[in-house]
Parts: sequence; C-alpha cells; structure tokens
Amino acid sequence: MTDISRHVPFPAADVPQWDFSTDVAVIGFGATGACAAIEAADAGAKVMLFERNSGSGGASGLSGGEIYIGGNGGTDAQIAAGFSDTTEDFAAYLKAAGGACADKAKCDLYATEALNHFGWLKAQGVPYRGNFLPGKHIEPTDDSTLIWSGSEAAAPFCDIAKPAPRGHVIQHMGWGGGRPLVDILEASARAKGVDVVTDARAVALVRDGAKIVGVVVRIDNQTRFVKADKGVVLATGGFVFNEDMRRKYCPETFRLSDPIGDKDDGVGIELGLGAGGDAIHMEQFFTTCPWTMPESHACGVFVNAQGARFINEDCYHGRVSRCAVDQPGGKVYLLLDNAHFVQPMDFARITIAGTGDSWDEVEAELELPKGTLSATMAVYNEHAREGRDPLFGKRPPILTPLDQGPFVALELNFQSSYFSFFTLGGLRTSTAGEVLDRAGAAIPGLFAAGRCTSGLPAWGHGYSSGLSLADCTFFGRQAGRAAAG
Amino acid sequence: MTDISRHVPFPAADVPQWDFSTDVAVIGFGATGACAAIEAADAGAKVMLFERNSGSGGASGLSGGEIYIGGNGGTDAQIAAGFSDTTEDFAAYLKAAGGACADKAKCDLYATEALNHFGWLKAQGVPYRGNFLPGKHIEPTDDSTLIWSGSEAAAPFCDIAKPAPRGHVIQHMGWGGGRPLVDILEASARAKGVDVVTDARAVALVRDGAKIVGVVVRIDNQTRFVKADKGVVLATGGFVFNEDMRRKYCPETFRLSDPIGDKDDGVGIELGLGAGGDAIHMEQFFTTCPWTMPESHACGVFVNAQGARFINEDCYHGRVSRCAVDQPGGKVYLLLDNAHFVQPMDFARITIAGTGDSWDEVEAELELPKGTLSATMAVYNEHAREGRDPLFGKRPPILTPLDQGPFVALELNFQSSYFSFFTLGGLRTSTAGEVLDRAGAAIPGLFAAGRCTSGLPAWGHGYSSGLSLADCTFFGRQAGRAAAG
Repeated sequence: MTDISRHVPFPAADVPQWDFSTDVAVIGFGATGACAAIEAADAGAKVMLFERNSGSGGASGLSGGEIYIGGNGGTDAQIAAGFSDTTEDFAAYLKAAGGACADKAKCDLYATEALNHFGWLKAQGVPYRGNFLPGKHIEPTDDSTLIWSGSEAAAPFCDIAKPAPRGHVIQHMGWGGGRPLVDILEASARAKGVDVVTDARAVALVRDGAKIVGVVVRIDNQTRFVKADKGVVLATGGFVFNEDMRRKYCPETFRLSDPIGDKDDGVGIELGLGAGGDAIHMEQFFTTCPWTMPESHACGVFVNAQGARFINEDCYHGRVSRCAVDQPGGKVYLLLDNAHFVQPMDFARITIAGTGDSWDEVEAELELPKGTLSATMAVYNEHAREGRDPLFGKRPPILTPLDQGPFVALELNFQSSYFSFFTLGGLRTSTAGEVLDRAGAAIPGLFAAGRCTSGLPAWGHGYSSGLSLADCTFFGRQAGRAAAG
Repeated sequence: MTDISRHVPFPAADVPQWDFSTDVAVIGFGATGACAAIEAADAGAKVMLFERNSGSGGASGLSGGEIYIGGNGGTDAQIAAGFSDTTEDFAAYLKAAGGACADKAKCDLYATEALNHFGWLKAQGVPYRGNFLPGKHIEPTDDSTLIWSGSEAAAPFCDIAKPAPRGHVIQHMGWGGGRPLVDILEASARAKGVDVVTDARAVALVRDGAKIVGVVVRIDNQTRFVKADKGVVLATGGFVFNEDMRRKYCPETFRLSDPIGDKDDGVGIELGLGAGGDAIHMEQFFTTCPWTMPESHACGVFVNAQGARFINEDCYHGRVSRCAVDQPGGKVYLLLDNAHFVQPMDFARITIAGTGDSWDEVEAELELPKGTLSATMAVYNEHAREGRDPLFGKRPPILTPLDQGPFVALELNFQSSYFSFFTLGGLRTSTAGEVLDRAGAAIPGLFAAGRCTSGLPAWGHGYSSGLSLADCTFFGRQAGRAAAG
C-alpha cells in the first residue's frame, strides 16, 4: 500500500475506500477548529471535525479565554469604561505588536471586523460581564471582562496608537476561562450539526491533482479515509511539543523549560508543508514568566546579569520576559523595595537572590561589581522621582521610585524559573484562511488557522494576551467559511 | 506545456527533449559549485556546471578568500606560528560558534577532515604563504596566511576550546582573495573536464518518481532540459537579494541597509523546498560593520543607546555587530580615547556622535542621562586597570583602560552605517551533502552545499570569518562526491 506520511499528500487514486464523506473536514477541536466548524456549518456545508483527544480543548482550553478586541469606536465594555478605540489605532497597534513579522492585511482586516466578531462570539453564547478591571493582571481572578492585556500604554506602542485596554475575558470566576469558552463553542458547533469524531488523529492529507480532497485519520488503530469535497481546515496548533521541529526551526526555546499547550506537535504545519505550503517566522515564540504576580511586583525594575536595565518594565509581562531571555548571563533580576515586595507565587520558581538596606548592599550580595546595579538604580530613582524614564520611557503610575530600603532582588532564571512558552511560526495563509504555497497562490482545498499558521501574534517580543485567541477564533471562522464556499 | 516553476519539480515524463546530458549537474559557480564539480569529476563522473552569470565567482568571488581550518594538531601555518590545535578543540569551537543552530555532525566531520581539506585546496593550486599575522584584522592587507578570524580568544569561547587562530587566507596582496581563489578552483575544474555553461539560469528541477533526474535552465532566453543521471548539486548561495524571502523568513534584516552577495536570490533553497526539502534556521544572518578598522579601534568599548555595555568587545567584529543590532534604540556607540582614535574608514559610514575631555562630557554631548555612560566607563576603567572585566570577560591586551581624555563616541547606526549582511539559513543536508526531506531522509538525486544550505556558519551571533568558505569548499566537495557516487 502507498505510504501514509504527514510529509506527502496521499494520492486520491490510491484511496482504497472512503470511510467518511463530508463537505468540510476540520482537524483539531480547540477554539480555531470550533469556530471554523461553526462558520462552515452556517454556510450550509456538511462538516466533520476530527480531534485526536477524547474531547475538545486543545491549547485554547488551557488558556485564559481572553480575546483581543477593539476598533470601530470601541466595544461596549471599552465604551462603558470610558475608552474609545478607533479602527486605525487598533490596526496600528496590531502591526506594531507584529513587528517585522506582521501580516498587515490580517491586522487591517481584523481591526475592521473585530467588533462584529465580538458580536458573533456573544451570539454563540459566550458571556461577558461587561466591566473593566483596572490594574495589571495576567488574567482576572474574578469574572471581569476588560483588562489591559498588552503593551498599549507603554513606549513605544503608546506613541504609535492611542492606548486602550483590549483584552476581553469570558465571564468566568477566576483563571482558566479557555475551558468554558471552548465548551460554549463546542455546544454551538454541535447544535449546528457538526459531526465530531474524537480519538481521531490526522496523519496525512489526500490530494487529487492539485487539490486537497480529504484527510487520512487514525481511529481505533485503524486507517480511515475522509473525503472532504469542499476543503480541509487545519486547526492543529503549534509545534511546542515537537522537539525535532523546535530543534530545526526554533532552537532558542531549548533554553527554557516549560512548553505549554496540548500535544501541539506541529502536525498541521507539516501536513501543510507537504502539500506545498510555506511555513514562515518559525523561529518566533511567546514566553512569559509571571513576574507581575503579585501585582505590586509590576512596579519593579529589571536589570540583567550585568546590572543594566533593558526594557521599560511597564509593557506587557510577556514582552518583558521575551526581552529578558535575550539578555546575556542566563538570568535577570527583578528589583523591588519593601513596599512592593510580596513573596512570589510558588509556581513561578522565582527566587530571592539578594537583599540589602541600600542598592549598594544588594549589588554586593549579587556579587555585581560596585557601581553597576547601584548606578542603574541611582539614575532610575533620580528620574522616577520626576515621573520620567529618559532611558526606556517607562510611565507613571507604574514608574515608581524604589529608594526606600530594605530592597530585594528576585532572580528569574531562564532554565529554572517558570518561563512558559509556545511557538508562533506556522503556515502562511491568506486573510481568508487559504494555505498559500511558496509562490503565494492558494492551495486548492486546503485551509488553516490558529497556531499552525503565522497570524496576528507573529512576533514574540510584541505578543499581547488575547492576540492568539483573537487570531484563532476570527481566522478560524474565515477558514471555515472559505472552505465551505 | 507543463508549467516550469522553481517551486515544483518538472515531471520527467513531460520533458520534450533532453538538450544536455551529464552524470552530475552543478548549479552555481562560486567556490561551492567549483569544489563540487572538481570532486564529482575526480570520482569519474561527467560533470556539467551551469552558472547564471557570464563567469565564475558568486559571493565567494567577492569574499576575502579566507577559510577556517584547524584541528589534528594544527596546520603548517598554525604550527610554524607556535599554535597547536586539537581536533577536539576545533570541533568544540565550531559547535559553540553554531550555538543552538549547530549541526554537530558537520562540525565533527569538518574538524576531523579540515587538515586533509587544506591539503586538497593546495593540491588544486591554492597558494599559501604560510606565515602568521598577529593582531585584529578583517582581512590581511598584505599576502599573509593565518589570522585570528573569530572569537577564539574571547569569552565564552576561550573557556570552551583552547584558542588558536584558524583563518587561512590565500596568498594574494591585499583584500579580495576570494576572486583568485575561485579562479584557481575554476581552472582546476576545467582542467578536469568539467563542462561549464555560463549565462544559464536554473529555473526548475526535473523529477522522475521520487528521484531528481535533471534541471531546467534558461539559456539565450530558451528553456533547456538537462539530464543528470547521477544527481544535481545546488550551489546557488543564500537569499539576501530576495526581498520576498527575507520578508517571510528573515525580516529582521530590513533594519540593515547593505546586503552583500552576488544575485543570491534563494533559488536553490526554493528548488530544494519544492523537491520536498527542509529549510532550517532561516532567520539567521551574518552582519558586520567594520568597526575594527583602523585596528586601534578594536580597543574601544561599546555602549548601547542607553549607555550600557552589552558584549566583551574582544570577540569577533561580526559577533559584536550582530549583538549590537539586538540593542534597543537603533544605534550603538564605540567609545575611544585619543590614543586609539583614528578617523574611521569612509565606507563604514561611522560618524562622530560626541566628544569630551571626560566621559561625563561625552555623556552630556550624547544627551544621555547623567550617570549612565560615565558610570559604565568608571566601572570599566577601574577593572581594566587591573586587567579584568568582571561583567563580560574581555581580556588583555585588547582590554585597555580608556581613562585619558580627550574621548570620542563613534556612532554605528543600524540604518545608515555600513552593516553588511547575508543570510545563513537554508536547506537541511546530511554531512554527505544530500538534501534531506522533512522526515530526515535523503531526496534521491539531490545534493546541496554552501549558503543555500544551513551549515557550519549556522548562527549569526557566533559567525567567524572563514566559516562560510570552509563550509562551501568542504561540503561542496562532499556533495559533488556523493552526487557522483
């Protein structure tokens, strides 16, 4: 029998029999796959969804359920809290957050459509309390809706786009809103007649001439052939749990210890590449160490192992963390005064590296040369007292002098502290979710969205919470609609 | 007629007629292609070499003709200068220079074989004077052989492998030894009967089943089909002149202005990808701004736009430059005292940003906050006077106090200064030069070497002069021999 490989599409002519037949086959039942399935069903297509696990979830189900939304004047939650948000500002922020990797067409489309998308999410049944929670939060610990979830109010982003909070979190008490988010999307998909097949792992695409016409799945240790007359949607997530792929495409992540996701083995990327697709920005990854918890720590100052600052610490915790792991020496220090220090969360594995009644004493305890950390903090404090940060543009109120001892230096160690990470690179797709080949043409019958593609969260240094789920849900819908059409 | 595309191999069954027939077809006539052709001819194969330009050269012909060689006790030039160099030290350096991107099997093989390779180069007629030129040189300005061409004597490399100079330069007065190097290799290839076809641009591979059996070239505006019974060797260089590829795979390079190479448009990478190959480490690039010229500038201290040091400045100029462009603020400053300052070379477009009789004055002239650059230099000088650099491990004799004014700060601006760059990512190949597919298997009939592959110079931050030509010439030979066999 013809080999079955994720790297080469299986020839349709060699399919012994079609075990399933549908219009649209969606692979993966995280938020991306759910949204693709819903849209495809709404467009009148017969939809089958194949998920390797025994139920829905994927990385989305492990997330906070936060979605980055704004533009068109602002969402109800933004407006109720007194924020306005133009589409232009929203698009400009998305492009800045994507840096050199930004897909400008995706940024523009999403900025234009995000408000409609928010309405669509609500129409699926996703509840939002509608309130704004001020401050610096990784996720709300209550059931609040709107939080500052990126670097909007921090340099240089605040000079590129008028700041507004855009992280919209499902109404759900505490962390972990991703699970109920996917549950609601699953219920919607099932209500629309999507045929869900779990414990079904995609192992190959099926191609007839230039067109992808189906997918090969393994169910109960059997090979099954799925005919998909209109298209296949890849929604399988990134490759953070595929060490071979990380070694080839994203080896910098081996300096960190805590991949997060749900079996994200890059299968969709490899299936797409095998079909002639293009994988881009494969070296990009998100990482964060939860250093803003407790929240008072957000007022801390970071120095690298040489005692120098490297970032305006008021930007997004993930941006600070990503810049931190660029620093030489394997670790960075978060400097705090007694007024702001609280014992860090155990799970962060952040340790106390030094203390002192003066920054000179802390410097000595860290065995840093005299005149390094202490000079850094003297410059910082002198200007912070005037509400300025001439070096990095950190802004009040997070900009706070740290000049009343005792002081502490917390160590964030790239190997031993909790630096969670996941990959951002993936298939190149059109705004409609078509998988593009290396010449830029759509591969007939093949669609993809979410973290098996490179999308809105394109650049690790510019990541903001909610960007990935925004990308997954919106471009998942795009892919599902395009596949059905 | 079937479409001819660099992205999809042309089906052998659709070839209207074979215009040329050979055992091995080599694409590209830089050092890689020349070495592949020579080895294939030596193995008894009929070899045709196709070059898009009107003559040999490629990026190799624009280079300094320097090749990184060592191990097995040392070359004649190393030994004559009093250096020993074990294979273990050489391999350890190569791996450190490749960082997380290192192909350890290639490093080990090359470390073992480099001395034999040096003999082979000499046997082709490449002359070496055999002497050692001490000091810090980008290329010798005379016809010397051996120079320190990497970060061997600098931290952390000097703690990983016993330092030895390994840059071996062809005997040639002044810069530009790459041109005579390629001329000699060309003469050797022609003497061995290699059939060179110039003004012949490869546009597609030809595939018969799973095997690459030929190549499609454009000659005099005509499409010509080349049958290659034993194999095709891609030796087409990187993709620094393909802006679409840079945007997709290496967008960080758009911050720099001076790509170097010779029409390197990535065609070999795209041909290989189309045949099922795998492109890895595509985000990696070499860059350097020639800040060590004049040589006294090598004793300078770098600070970023925030006045902080970021590197031990005694490492390779390209490593310093690559780390420089990671710094925030779009520029870095090279700090010098009057004793070491000479007007920079015009072509470097390095400007004088500030001067002063004290570092405080320089700091003020650069409009840096008081206590930044001046504190950096106070710490630096205090320890440099003791022969130490506790922050970055810079070593004497390059480690020099800069405490006798007047002083100057030179600006290296990422956009406006001369930061030359070229790409390092490319096809994944075996040590034998076989192009590997994404599952790691060799693609029958397809071979590649040089900068259309990811090889010894895998990591921009660890680049050392001579690594690329070492990779091109040695693994070019490997690919040629494998193709012929």
